[in-house]
Amino acid sequence: MTNIRGRFEKPADKMANKYTASIPFDWRLYPYDIAGSVAHAMMLARQGIITDEEARLICEGLSRIRLKIEAGEFEFKSEFEDIHMNIEAALIEQVGEAGRKLHTARSRNDQIALDMRLFTKHAITDTMESIRSLQRALVSLAEKNRKVIMPGFTHLQHAQPVLLAHHLLAYFEMLQRDFGRFADCLERTDVMPLGSGALAGLPYDIDRDFVARELSFNRVSHNSIDAVSDRDFVIEYEACAATCMMHLSRLTQEITLWATAEFGFTHIDDTYATGSSIMPQKKNPDVAELARGKTGRVYGHLTAMLTVMKALPLAYNSDLQEDKEGLFDTVDTLISTLDIISGMMNTLSFDPAKTRAAAGQGYILATDLADYLVRKGEAFRSAHEIVGKLVSHAAQRNLPLNKLPLIEYQAFSPRFAADVYAVSLESSLRARNSYGGTSPQQVSRALRVARKIIGGI
Amino acid sequence: MTNIRGRFEKPADKMANKYTASIPFDWRLYPYDIAGSVAHAMMLARQGIITDEEARLICEGLSRIRLKIEAGEFEFKSEFEDIHMNIEAALIEQVGEAGRKLHTARSRNDQIALDMRLFTKHAITDTMESIRSLQRALVSLAEKNRKVIMPGFTHLQHAQPVLLAHHLLAYFEMLQRDFGRFADCLERTDVMPLGSGALAGLPYDIDRDFVARELSFNRVSHNSIDAVSDRDFVIEYEACAATCMMHLSRLTQEITLWATAEFGFTHIDDTYATGSSIMPQKKNPDVAELARGKTGRVYGHLTAMLTVMKALPLAYNSDLQEDKEGLFDTVDTLISTLDIISGMMNTLSFDPAKTRAAAGQGYILATDLADYLVRKGEAFRSAHEIVGKLVSHAAQRNLPLNKLPLIEYQAFSPRFAADVYAVSLESSLRARNSYGGTSPQQVSRALRVARKIIGGI
Amino acid sequence: MTNIRGRFEKPADKMANKYTASIPFDWRLYPYDIAGSVAHAMMLARQGIITDEEARLICEGLSRIRLKIEAGEFEFKSEFEDIHMNIEAALIEQVGEAGRKLHTARSRNDQIALDMRLFTKHAITDTMESIRSLQRALVSLAEKNRKVIMPGFTHLQHAQPVLLAHHLLAYFEMLQRDFGRFADCLERTDVMPLGSGALAGLPYDIDRDFVARELSFNRVSHNSIDAVSDRDFVIEYEACAATCMMHLSRLTQEITLWATAEFGFTHIDDTYATGSSIMPQKKNPDVAELARGKTGRVYGHLTAMLTVMKALPLAYNSDLQEDKEGLFDTVDTLISTLDIISGMMNTLSFDPAKTRAAAGQGYILATDLADYLVRKGEAFRSAHEIVGKLVSHAAQRNLPLNKLPLIEYQAFSPRFAADVYAVSLESSLRARNSYGGTSPQQVSRALRVARKIIGGI
Amino acid sequence: MTNIRGRFEKPADKMANKYTASIPFDWRLYPYDIAGSVAHAMMLARQGIITDEEARLICEGLSRIRLKIEAGEFEFKSEFEDIHMNIEAALIEQVGEAGRKLHTARSRNDQIALDMRLFTKHAITDTMESIRSLQRALVSLAEKNRKVIMPGFTHLQHAQPVLLAHHLLAYFEMLQRDFGRFADCLERTDVMPLGSGALAGLPYDIDRDFVARELSFNRVSHNSIDAVSDRDFVIEYEACAATCMMHLSRLTQEITLWATAEFGFTHIDDTYATGSSIMPQKKNPDVAELARGKTGRVYGHLTAMLTVMKALPLAYNSDLQEDKEGLFDTVDTLISTLDIISGMMNTLSFDPAKTRAAAGQGYILATDLADYLVRKGEAFRSAHEIVGKLVSHAAQRNLPLNKLPLIEYQAFSPRFAADVYAVSLESSLRARNSYGGTSPQQVSRALRVARKIIGGI
Repeated sequence: MTNIRGRFEKPADKMANKYTASIPFDWRLYPYDIAGSVAHAMMLARQGIITDEEARLICEGLSRIRLKIEAGEFEFKSEFEDIHMNIEAALIEQVGEAGRKLHTARSRNDQIALDMRLFTKHAITDTMESIRSLQRALVSLAEKNRKVIMPGFTHLQHAQPVLLAHHLLAYFEMLQRDFGRFADCLERTDVMPLGSGALAGLPYDIDRDFVARELSFNRVSHNSIDAVSDRDFVIEYEACAATCMMHLSRLTQEITLWATAEFGFTHIDDTYATGSSIMPQKKNPDVAELARGKTGRVYGHLTAMLTVMKALPLAYNSDLQEDKEGLFDTVDTLISTLDIISGMMNTLSFDPAKTRAAAGQGYILATDLADYLVRKGEAFRSAHEIVGKLVSHAAQRNLPLNKLPLIEYQAFSPRFAADVYAVSLESSLRARNSYGGTSPQQVSRALRVARKIIGGI
Repeated sequence: MTNIRGRFEKPADKMANKYTASIPFDWRLYPYDIAGSVAHAMMLARQGIITDEEARLICEGLSRIRLKIEAGEFEFKSEFEDIHMNIEAALIEQVGEAGRKLHTARSRNDQIALDMRLFTKHAITDTMESIRSLQRALVSLAEKNRKVIMPGFTHLQHAQPVLLAHHLLAYFEMLQRDFGRFADCLERTDVMPLGSGALAGLPYDIDRDFVARELSFNRVSHNSIDAVSDRDFVIEYEACAATCMMHLSRLTQEITLWATAEFGFTHIDDTYATGSSIMPQKKNPDVAELARGKTGRVYGHLTAMLTVMKALPLAYNSDLQEDKEGLFDTVDTLISTLDIISGMMNTLSFDPAKTRAAAGQGYILATDLADYLVRKGEAFRSAHEIVGKLVSHAAQRNLPLNKLPLIEYQAFSPRFAADVYAVSLESSLRARNSYGGTSPQQVSRALRVARKIIGGI
Repeated sequence: MTNIRGRFEKPADKMANKYTASIPFDWRLYPYDIAGSVAHAMMLARQGIITDEEARLICEGLSRIRLKIEAGEFEFKSEFEDIHMNIEAALIEQVGEAGRKLHTARSRNDQIALDMRLFTKHAITDTMESIRSLQRALVSLAEKNRKVIMPGFTHLQHAQPVLLAHHLLAYFEMLQRDFGRFADCLERTDVMPLGSGALAGLPYDIDRDFVARELSFNRVSHNSIDAVSDRDFVIEYEACAATCMMHLSRLTQEITLWATAEFGFTHIDDTYATGSSIMPQKKNPDVAELARGKTGRVYGHLTAMLTVMKALPLAYNSDLQEDKEGLFDTVDTLISTLDIISGMMNTLSFDPAKTRAAAGQGYILATDLADYLVRKGEAFRSAHEIVGKLVSHAAQRNLPLNKLPLIEYQAFSPRFAADVYAVSLESSLRARNSYGGTSPQQVSRALRVARKIIGGI
Repeated sequence: MTNIRGRFEKPADKMANKYTASIPFDWRLYPYDIAGSVAHAMMLARQGIITDEEARLICEGLSRIRLKIEAGEFEFKSEFEDIHMNIEAALIEQVGEAGRKLHTARSRNDQIALDMRLFTKHAITDTMESIRSLQRALVSLAEKNRKVIMPGFTHLQHAQPVLLAHHLLAYFEMLQRDFGRFADCLERTDVMPLGSGALAGLPYDIDRDFVARELSFNRVSHNSIDAVSDRDFVIEYEACAATCMMHLSRLTQEITLWATAEFGFTHIDDTYATGSSIMPQKKNPDVAELARGKTGRVYGHLTAMLTVMKALPLAYNSDLQEDKEGLFDTVDTLISTLDIISGMMNTLSFDPAKTRAAAGQGYILATDLADYLVRKGEAFRSAHEIVGKLVSHAAQRNLPLNKLPLIEYQAFSPRFAADVYAVSLESSLRARNSYGGTSPQQVSRALRVARKIIGGI
């Protein structure tokens, strides 16, 4: 860009200009860039560095530019490299000399740090809201299906019966941790860097706290070199997002499983399914699959940013320009995925007969039999071995446990008595009443707590 | 392992046994596994699930096993798969029937979750201490070199003069954020999972809060399915570690640069350097390079764990076994790197003449001239352009700015006067007195605050 | 290490020594290090740089050291940093002065490059053999189950019927590409770097081609700076391994699915399954899950090595030392995973009745109906729409397609006639006889070709 | 999209439609999609599946659509999901019934596989050309600076003198390996998947070889399930690109170093440098930094795609849709980076006096002295120790080696004689005449070979 190439003899190579220009993606920062400039100009005037009249001209000019951008009438130019220079050039064109004073006591290095922090703060708030929406959808779905029994899985094998609501609330917990991580990230992002200059601070009597207050920041940065070279908040957002997408990939993986012909646990609403170009019968859980697939790009952006920052000397380097596209795409991907899954969960239905039948199949109550023996005085490790052999025997006879005659039970342990037939899916569920367990009582309690949390945002 | 293969007809394939055994690395969890078992046994006795005598036998047996392990006399066996089964088998051998009761109201799924959380809590505390040590080393080094002036860099080009102490304190800030992130991670790790059973909770009247108190946990987990399938705390540690290693890679990168013949800013003590097998004169900053290189493995472990967890259905799956080696290596790498860099910083010396000469070279005070013109009434953008051309002129005449006659200054702007020659490295530093800037006054303040923080741990 | 610290005044710090020593892991390179030294010594003698007697002493000494290492009687010492210095020190101790000449015309920089290339070449060959074994297991399994029909899946939904053998051969193809990639990687690894010295070549009349021939290399490296700073072959191995593990993760994912109670397609042999510590009935596909999980660490090692190499100035830097552990673990993981899966596949059995019943369920033949209409003159896109509506109608009536009366067919298109009932799983399979399709004829052909390939190694 | 939702009762949710639509990025595949459809239509006609007239209508229609797209007059619609359906819908609108027949014997699953392979083949060819251009720029730069001597570095410390041309040719070698990797990748990408149908092959008498020949493919795919679920070629391109970007990051890292005030080895042309918004004197190596930074995103895309594919069951899943944006961006980034670096290298100049002076500084000839002693009969390891002590002595006396009196040399070894002063930068370079070394003779040879390679494309 000409006006900052005073010492250069030659213009930038065209290809180089295109390669280095960030305006094709950083235009998106315009509301933050303008808000920052307004606060900066007001501060400069308050401190007597520019006149009140100059500040007024600047603020009005910026306001008009913002309207123009929002009306789609502003032409972003690659020759002006980035959003800062595009806006500054337009401002100077509009208000003349006053515009040339806006960059007093400021560098693009602290300006972009400010813009990125403002953007990230908004992104975090939006993300937290979308997390809450999905939590709400999960709780509603759990309440709607309060009595649905399904097999609990470990190693994707039937393990012990659980309530579907209990299973859904496991995701509520994951999202709750995600919410907390984003809240902590917000705390660390909420630091105002303007006033750090290029890297060394500024030789003007500026008031950084005023700017922070104007822009609703909690604190100002403590070290000017760090302030312009720090992108921890970008990495932290992306790391939180990666973990959250991982949770969503587990949920959507389960939905694709549950929607198979083989499981048949769930029915995805037509509005969240797609057809095939060749197979007329197909109904594909496209949204769930894509959400799972998009985990990849979020992991990728995290890897990218960690790579960018590795071994960079202080302070600002152009490599930092690579922070933007990855962050923008991470934010867009995460929020849209949370929202679309909320929508899908809100329309998801279950087949309680199928899930109960699945839970009833096989030897899912074997642990209950071992616990039965423990209550009758057997040591757990021995009880486990006895029931292991009993299951093996029943499997060979191709009988479910509750069809096995008592005498055969007793061949494995004399402790078995007629009350062994009282062991059932329901008794199993009721029994697991330890804090956080799957008993109806525990699940009701958990639903009440969850309701409180999501009501309380 | 035989005693949990009751229902199997055939033993595990040998290669399969080796492939799945975790004891070659999870033996390291023994102190946590034993502490957890002791607390569990005490709870079982308090709740009347086992007798006090059985609990006593168990606790004494575990205590003897621990001593044996620490004396190097315990034989870990691959046939017993993992640390839990190795210890349980040894316990049963020692105390018989009572030992067979220890696994009452417990599954390996919640047991390993407990062990991993105990390990991670300790690892975080150790990490935070090592961070504080490095912060201390940085502050001492800054204080020792309080007056050293060096060129501040952006784009690895001389930008503006800064105090070395200010530059070092930028790393203090990064580590301060790392400290905060680990503290938040500790908070989320500090959740007691035992009592979740295999996945569904337990059909015994257990007291999870008692176990939590015994093991110094703040809270118990809320959902049993989540509790056994959650490894967020592993990912979060690894993500925090990746960011911290990134900071260290920037620091060590700078040290390798500063130690070059070309920069010559710093002298690495012999004790932190290595020689060459072929070049007798070589003195290599081996420690700094390796620390930078080890960033790779920490990033790699984070990628690995995110990959492992992607799209895993609930609840426990064997894939989770892959959480351990990566976490162990991350912890070891991060702590040893923090410690070795502390040692290196404590013995690092600077060459103030060299750094000052470097700062004096070239046109590093150009911004000060622009600010000079602003103070004389020029708009900043115009001042920037004027000085840009002035620098270009001086460079063509091959003269430093302070050797340029006033008349030539004035050819670029009539605002230049004799006081332009008062612009110096020192005046530049003094002027950058905005909060967080590099002025001696600001740096002194920052050092005082830093001292307070590191004193206050 | 003392003997290369001639210019240092102080010994290395103990912690620094431990931090930088690579002997804890690079001892594993001893056969390659010794083979390289033997070839180097023979070359030095041939060129008259050392005497034949010196070469004899060196070679015999190295041979004794190798035996000692293999007998477990060699003490590796951290003070000697790495495998090279450990062996050189032992050699000098044994053969005196001659040993002090071995490092003539050599640097550790080209020596380690040689060792790593020798190791990698062997690793690639072993990997390719393990790939062939798994291909053999797949072909045998396909042949054994030649007639098994199962539903083919897209989006994990039933799509069209396929032969299980066809499905298994898809994995054969993936492994065939892996095989090719490793072969290409071998080609690029097969370059002899010794003779590059520290980075600049050597001032001795050496014969690099002789060394290459002795060590069975195809070529020598062309540029000494590149030769000592290149680790492309490590990255390429890791990238090939990542892709191969990805394939294995798809296969093991399918096995865990097929082994669920819900699918019930397959039966994993007891020897490749594990039990539960709490649930007596459990039989977990532990091996398949772990193999899937180990994808994470292989991806992680690739990320790590790419990170290590990023932005490293030429030539050798200590960061390169980080190439070893990741590569070793990648090789071990990939080969053991290929082998264990071969074993598991060799003992896997299928339930043809279950898979056929699954294929028969639902509307899997809908595409065949559309193709039926096309053969009767309908445009495909219209035929697709007609059958889409027909399926919707049948689903509402809760009838399979072959139970729907002809009159109802004809309500959707007059082109339907009595021969529509001839559409069956078998007719569908037979019809898909395009090259590479699932028809029995195509699959037989593919099996013949596969047999030829795996016979031909 | 309505026409493939025959069996659905409800339209897709709007947000879901937006979430799943790929047209915003896959429109870019239009030339490949159209070329594939033309070849397919011609084949259908040849085989008598459609009439010649229908084929003619289809081909003409597609041709018009292509022109419309290229003229910017084609409206891509999100409701038609993807590029295939957008084009098919437009075709049907144009040519009616014939258009409804184009999708005979084809699925979007094999169609997109075809489009992606065509795109990737073109991308590889373009990439290989850009690699050749950069190799040309490097060779020209090396020839232009044939006699420039600089210090060779290991550990970023002066190691031994080298010719700049030799250093630049190290990058030539890296790019040569990249070229080979892309060539191998092209080989594996060059496989025609059309004719695989949805996953099971097709029930039509199609001629896949004809389609392959029409589209210039070498081979057809062997297994229909593999053909539609394979994205190895995407991963392989991205892995090759990651390695190539790693090489470029090393080169650009060196350029940023060499362009520092401290090194001063090189001068970046104004056309490839940028200024600062605040510091008028700044000239930043922006292009080099950005190229280095862009390594991150390419690594990220590789991580992303490996993550996407992990543990996906066969055959096609919607996750595969995530292959596109990452690949597109990888291709664009790699090619533009190669090209911009070519431009930068073509305008780069060196300061031979500075680089020679740097090489002359310090004790860079110490290895030459050790080799000198070896030639006089000393064992290398002893010679290394002697010179180590000599260097230490000279450093204490603060003297360069060639200013040290002979008598002091001889205090360390009686083998030193007056000819020790003949050791010079030039003698050192000349001596390193082993194959691939830095001697002028070797470098001339290497330049000749390089010229031949780049001439031969």
